[in-house]
Amino acid sequence: MLDFTLEDLSAEDVERLRDIYRPLTESVRELIDATIRTAADADTVAAAKAQIDAATAALRANQLDGPFGVRFTAHGDRMPWGNAVIGLRNPIAPPLQVQHEPDGGVFADFTLGAAYEGPPGHVHGGVAALILDHVLGESASPAASPRLTGTISMRYLRPTPLGALHVEAAIVRTEGVKTYAAGVISDAEGPTVQAEGVFIRPKWARD
Amino acid sequence: MLDFTLEDLSAEDVERLRDIYRPLTESVRELIDATIRTAADADTVAAAKAQIDAATAALRANQLDGPFGVRFTAHGDRMPWGNAVIGLRNPIAPPLQVQHEPDGGVFADFTLGAAYEGPPGHVHGGVAALILDHVLGESASPAASPRLTGTISMRYLRPTPLGALHVEAAIVRTEGVKTYAAGVISDAEGPTVQAEGVFIRPKWARD
Repeated sequence: MLDFTLEDLSAEDVERLRDIYRPLTESVRELIDATIRTAADADTVAAAKAQIDAATAALRANQLDGPFGVRFTAHGDRMPWGNAVIGLRNPIAPPLQVQHEPDGGVFADFTLGAAYEGPPGHVHGGVAALILDHVLGESASPAASPRLTGTISMRYLRPTPLGALHVEAAIVRTEGVKTYAAGVISDAEGPTVQAEGVFIRPKWARD
Repeated sequence: MLDFTLEDLSAEDVERLRDIYRPLTESVRELIDATIRTAADADTVAAAKAQIDAATAALRANQLDGPFGVRFTAHGDRMPWGNAVIGLRNPIAPPLQVQHEPDGGVFADFTLGAAYEGPPGHVHGGVAALILDHVLGESASPAASPRLTGTISMRYLRPTPLGALHVEAAIVRTEGVKTYAAGVISDAEGPTVQAEGVFIRPKWARD
């Protein structure tokens, strides 16, 4: 069983925490990009490293024992802030802001930079898989009832360039505890990667 | 065609660059973990953010115009340093250090922390896909001749816990420009995710 955490926080508390931690995370995302792309000399790099280590030590003086987890409030606010794809406190997340459409489909417009590179100038095929897994899973999961990936298949039509991208997904059909979903990543020229998957309602989340 | 870059660097130059940039990247990985897990107050977070922004500005004063790319030297050193899975200059890469076995199989032992979380305490299913895509692709690619993912399928046997993990992959068979590979992620209790994929030799890399 997965250990979701219920937090005793008001909507205002959640907003206050968001305002404290989101700017930090955005700064670390910028630093990640700068770390990959810098051509600074050894002394500049060493000085930057010392500043970073000092910031890390200050942040670690008071920290959670483990990973962030997935937190909920009594008011129903969901805080998947550590999530590797959508987490507002996770600097490795682009982050995706997944939008839900009235017909049940989901989509996100997002930009991938140097941190997501595989082939030169292009998105790592596995990063495309990471994003599709998340977005198909979200399309298959009603808000209060998560689904976990059972199987997922990706089909790469052509290399996906770094830059502005779009992803969308929708449920194809549901059979008992299994929900079938499909989706696609596109650039301005059209689709680059297609995916289809089966998402399972975990035993502990069944009626 | 993908734009691989040939660098005029000696083996000593490459080692010197590695010694400058690897410690910086490792510090940023620690900062990513601290950013997710910190419970520091608003003032501490704001001070850390200011230090991070200063480090970023110093690193950006001299930087590449675009992503890092994949660089080679005339001596055959391969520098996929920006890669999202194995890049020694990419803080979002765990990084995997993929080992090659005499029989052609590949494997890596690695640890995933808070930055790779999906379900509470567990690896994001898409992160498992990211790693399997990379490792299957590497098993399917002779050193001088990259293969790109054509299709890949993941089968999730159970949730993968954060912590120490193992991944391995090998070629199943080759038919012309298509190489079939399979692999698995395991924790101490056994396999958690299986994958199989077809990897294609790009047209521009064919004889």
